[in-house]
Amino acid sequence: MTLSVSSSASSDTSALNKYPEKHNMTIQAVNEYLDAHRQQHLNKLFELLRIPSIANNNDGACSTAANWLVQCMSDLGVNARVAPTPTQPVAMGHLHVSDAVPTVLVYGHYDVQPATPLELWTSPPFEPTIRDGNICARGADDDKGQLFAYMMALEAYVRTHTPLPVNLKFLMEGEEEIGSPSLEDFLRENLADLACDAVLISDSAFFAAGLPSITYALRGVGNGEFFITEASSDSHSGMHGGALRNPLHVVCEIVAAMHNADGRIMVPGFYDDVLTLTPAQRESWSKLPFDEGEYARSLGLDHLGGGERGYNVLERLWARPTLDINGIGGGYAGKGGKTVIPSQASAKFSFRSVPKQDPHKLMNAIEQFVAARVPRGMKFRFEVGSANPPVLLRQETPAMQAAKEALHEVFGAPAAMICCGASIPVSEMFQRMLGVDAVMIGFGLPDDNLHAPNEKYALSQFYNAAKTIAATWAKMSR
Amino acid sequence: MTLSVSSSASSDTSALNKYPEKHNMTIQAVNEYLDAHRQQHLNKLFELLRIPSIANNNDGACSTAANWLVQCMSDLGVNARVAPTPTQPVAMGHLHVSDAVPTVLVYGHYDVQPATPLELWTSPPFEPTIRDGNICARGADDDKGQLFAYMMALEAYVRTHTPLPVNLKFLMEGEEEIGSPSLEDFLRENLADLACDAVLISDSAFFAAGLPSITYALRGVGNGEFFITEASSDSHSGMHGGALRNPLHVVCEIVAAMHNADGRIMVPGFYDDVLTLTPAQRESWSKLPFDEGEYARSLGLDHLGGGERGYNVLERLWARPTLDINGIGGGYAGKGGKTVIPSQASAKFSFRSVPKQDPHKLMNAIEQFVAARVPRGMKFRFEVGSANPPVLLRQETPAMQAAKEALHEVFGAPAAMICCGASIPVSEMFQRMLGVDAVMIGFGLPDDNLHAPNEKYALSQFYNAAKTIAATWAKMSR
Repeated sequence: MTLSVSSSASSDTSALNKYPEKHNMTIQAVNEYLDAHRQQHLNKLFELLRIPSIANNNDGACSTAANWLVQCMSDLGVNARVAPTPTQPVAMGHLHVSDAVPTVLVYGHYDVQPATPLELWTSPPFEPTIRDGNICARGADDDKGQLFAYMMALEAYVRTHTPLPVNLKFLMEGEEEIGSPSLEDFLRENLADLACDAVLISDSAFFAAGLPSITYALRGVGNGEFFITEASSDSHSGMHGGALRNPLHVVCEIVAAMHNADGRIMVPGFYDDVLTLTPAQRESWSKLPFDEGEYARSLGLDHLGGGERGYNVLERLWARPTLDINGIGGGYAGKGGKTVIPSQASAKFSFRSVPKQDPHKLMNAIEQFVAARVPRGMKFRFEVGSANPPVLLRQETPAMQAAKEALHEVFGAPAAMICCGASIPVSEMFQRMLGVDAVMIGFGLPDDNLHAPNEKYALSQFYNAAKTIAATWAKMSR
Repeated sequence: MTLSVSSSASSDTSALNKYPEKHNMTIQAVNEYLDAHRQQHLNKLFELLRIPSIANNNDGACSTAANWLVQCMSDLGVNARVAPTPTQPVAMGHLHVSDAVPTVLVYGHYDVQPATPLELWTSPPFEPTIRDGNICARGADDDKGQLFAYMMALEAYVRTHTPLPVNLKFLMEGEEEIGSPSLEDFLRENLADLACDAVLISDSAFFAAGLPSITYALRGVGNGEFFITEASSDSHSGMHGGALRNPLHVVCEIVAAMHNADGRIMVPGFYDDVLTLTPAQRESWSKLPFDEGEYARSLGLDHLGGGERGYNVLERLWARPTLDINGIGGGYAGKGGKTVIPSQASAKFSFRSVPKQDPHKLMNAIEQFVAARVPRGMKFRFEVGSANPPVLLRQETPAMQAAKEALHEVFGAPAAMICCGASIPVSEMFQRMLGVDAVMIGFGLPDDNLHAPNEKYALSQFYNAAKTIAATWAKMSR
């Protein structure tokens, strides 16, 4: 694993000085347009944010969002269409301007995480509102707010009659938050349509406010659920308590056995393929502006009391795998009590993997770990959700250089090359299937409450994202 | 603990022969009326079963059920009223016929358990239906079907102009399934109105089909919930997994520590006050027609694989305490997956206590056990639900003798004196506050699916219950 952190400071500053006059004039018109249309762009994003496009729901909201994006692209001259999949549709687009300029594939996702628990939101998740300089809504950052910046940048080129410096392809899926179950098949069936020179993905975040960042390594993610069954139906805890085994107790015993007191995962073989952090890597990461206390406070904590012993927080987030229980089912979850012994109990789990772990191997190891702990006579079922590998991206591509320069220019600070604990499986698929290493140029901030109540996205990030994207395109064709 | 099993076989048979002619003629008219009005009584019970009177719901259903019962009593000449409590109302009634006859207080409850999971019911829980000779509905046995037998018996006396042999008082509450939170205060405030010579409660079951039974000892029940909190809101398992502690893991560790591999509860002091089973008690219980394999099969199991080592099933159910987890909250419980680290997780627990355990002492012991296992820096909250003591009833009262004889007469077999693993806290309150040991003459059968999907109540039990009650009243005044 060649994880490392570098900043483009000195070399990029000199590069900025070499930009041709033409570029600066071109981008000036585009930027002026973006500055002049902030309210219009915000209004348009709000339309998209109001669509509760949760991938697991079959209420038509995802189709509505896909159609909205196709209409948005069509209005800008893009040859766009809604492409069905077995589950949620993809919004596809293609705008060819010249064989002489590079072709950029833009990836994003219009689906969002479920918004529960609703009672913890200050304002309703699907009624976007501005509060303290932030757009507050489910999907404001992840990923509607970020993908919409590409529409804004394209609109600025088109409406100012500025020649588009790249050919554009769009692929905006509706299943990212459930592990993109249809995406790999979809890519395979549309490989020719998706051929490109570069991929841009904005679905990540700055390392810190004021520190623009490009993410070049991400953890993989897998998830599933296991079920333990005893009796044929739920039982009265008085009539049968003491005779029947309680499947919730068994699930808890299995979950409790998954980690030891040092926070280490006890599933045999789990760490076998993890690349060891080198002293040089640990040294370079320690120089990033990361304060564990401040990070803890951002999560509402005085201090971080847990985690895997022997690694600091950044190392645990970027270079160490995890195994988490995301929910436990069985028995009674409503108001008050119910003296029931459930017939069945279950646990939803997910894991984060790091290079070079094989997620299928991990899934098998977890299944064996659980199966070995199911008491004799109890039934056991193991459901695999998704299993996507970790990814490591090349840093020396022209697109990566263009994005770094654009970030520096728009945000006034050199971009840090960082890793991310979260997973964007599509970047691994593009690498493997299209042979292109994506540029992950994310505009979120670390405290944007992704996947949680009160998701937000800073207005300043929203507006500057469009300028950065416009500049990146310009720099790619120079 | 003087738990023992006896049958009233030889002595009761001779007692039957001594009944005066008058009694037999009296009860004959009542029985003929009951036989002639089976369909009408079933229709009327169905009205009550259609009311989804779940105590935790504030949808007015409990008031509807209480009003229905008051109307039913009023129609039979009972001085009846709906008595409010801070939560769900009580249906009260009083019918005084003579100072020369004993006064019997009838207790029942019109509230029912929640009906979830709905998808496991063969027919909807609140649309009663007859299937295979059984009334199928939530509350068919527990306790609407059983308490309605008292209405049928009273109606038979009234409509046949047979002199009622006892004065009657009725107390039918709407909170039994949530631990009767208002009942003790209600009894205290209405002590004078409730003064009586005997209490009859039908909220238990035959030991086996064909074996009429009177329950003289019951386990106590307590319940509560504990909450473990880490961050201020749910977190993305990729962005923060590895840094944050997962409260679901902590809950599982605590639950896993509650029992050892022998099924013994590991909460310090939990068994301190449990009276030890004597060899004589174990010997007498072993003679009951109880087959562990058959019991297991009735629960859908090949065999019973768990439980506290060193005790057979009947001993575990009647004379040993239990501690069960009834549900675990936190994270995501919906369809599919959600890669979330919950900010909070919780466990609903309940315990069953036996004489002479003090439920408040047990509750404190559980709270200390949990508190001691909360990692430093995580927040902890412990909510006490209810905590009702176990109960042991005198077997030598005139009402108990009358009930035993009535059961023998109607069902053709001597009544067994049995214990019950479930809890009916009101019997302890009557003993302590009214100074009366209740007669727990239950008509359910062991496989009636109480608190579970597909609750049922056999038609033959339903019809014979009314005859048994009518006969018990007659025998009390002879």
